Amino acid sequence: MDKLRRRILQDGRSLPGGILKVDSFLNHQLDPNLMMDIARAFATKLDGKPINKIVTIEASGIAPAIMLGYVMQLPVVFVKRKVPNTMEKYYVRDIHSFTKDRDYTICISSDYLTPDDHIVFIDDFIAYGNVAKGIIDLCAQSGSTIEAFGFVIEKKFQGGGDMLRAEGFDVCSLATIIKLEDGKIFLND
Amino acid sequence: MDKLRRRILQDGRSLPGGILKVDSFLNHQLDPNLMMDIARAFATKLDGKPINKIVTIEASGIAPAIMLGYVMQLPVVFVKRKVPNTMEKYYVRDIHSFTKDRDYTICISSDYLTPDDHIVFIDDFIAYGNVAKGIIDLCAQSGSTIEAFGFVIEKKFQGGGDMLRAEGFDVCSLATIIKLEDGKIFLND
Repeated sequence: MDKLRRRILQDGRSLPGGILKVDSFLNHQLDPNLMMDIARAFATKLDGKPINKIVTIEASGIAPAIMLGYVMQLPVVFVKRKVPNTMEKYYVRDIHSFTKDRDYTICISSDYLTPDDHIVFIDDFIAYGNVAKGIIDLCAQSGSTIEAFGFVIEKKFQGGGDMLRAEGFDVCSLATIIKLEDGKIFLND
Repeated sequence: MDKLRRRILQDGRSLPGGILKVDSFLNHQLDPNLMMDIARAFATKLDGKPINKIVTIEASGIAPAIMLGYVMQLPVVFVKRKVPNTMEKYYVRDIHSFTKDRDYTICISSDYLTPDDHIVFIDDFIAYGNVAKGIIDLCAQSGSTIEAFGFVIEKKFQGGGDMLRAEGFDVCSLATIIKLEDGKIFLND
């Protein structure tokens, strides 16, 4: 997606430790027009798949996911990073965040992820793929089917996208970072 | 907003402790068409105000805020509930959540909230108004101006909306809950 690639090169910052900072348009300040273009790009790539629901995870996945929900006319559910005390029946999984260097619990209500659901999981980034593994587990617990994963940015050098592909999943990344080195951002072609 | 009021009465659940559960369409599963209607209703009410930026807070404020950003063609910034370790310069404030019975820190990068900004703050709920007080403080620290507050649902019996009005703020709530009693939801006219 050319517009996204240009924006990453223009406004993204490569930080030590394999971090790509894109907080001016993707995960702190948000550009609504870019977000709609991202949603349309996902919708084009997902065309023809029997998807009935979009799943994402708080917080940075919500903006692209709700836009995609609007474009595809599908409900969206966001996975929570903590079990709310008003949630009665849910699926839960502990995962480790390398970025934040801590463990946390992700959960989704069993009311909104069922054996009838064929989902696409949308998120801003895929890095090592730990969140994705958690989503695969939540979907297995619920009996729902993952039709595809869609990531705004794939950090290919951290291996999560290729791990999913090796497991047979359909992975759609709108921009792919080959490496971050010496403060420079290297995108694939 | 009639469509929202009907949806609250149809799908919302009144729980003990003044809790209104709306996780089937507003803060876990999300209805994108309702979210767009919510954004259009906010845009109508905010018409004519010199707003240049939409501020919200993760996670449940993001969906209505990004839709409003799209409708009003304005950037959106979501306040974080934890200081990210990649954030360099920021404004911060500790607040107390009655719903979750814990203290936490909210923060926003000083790159995205400046003296030039005239903002509307959007959130899914206003209850006691503790988040709103935190936002007032972040805006004071940054020198930015709050033009209005917009809430999808105001729990009037918890006083936060009226506290803001008493301080002279313009508060726009799309649905107002008078009371939650015996499992019933009482909306105002």
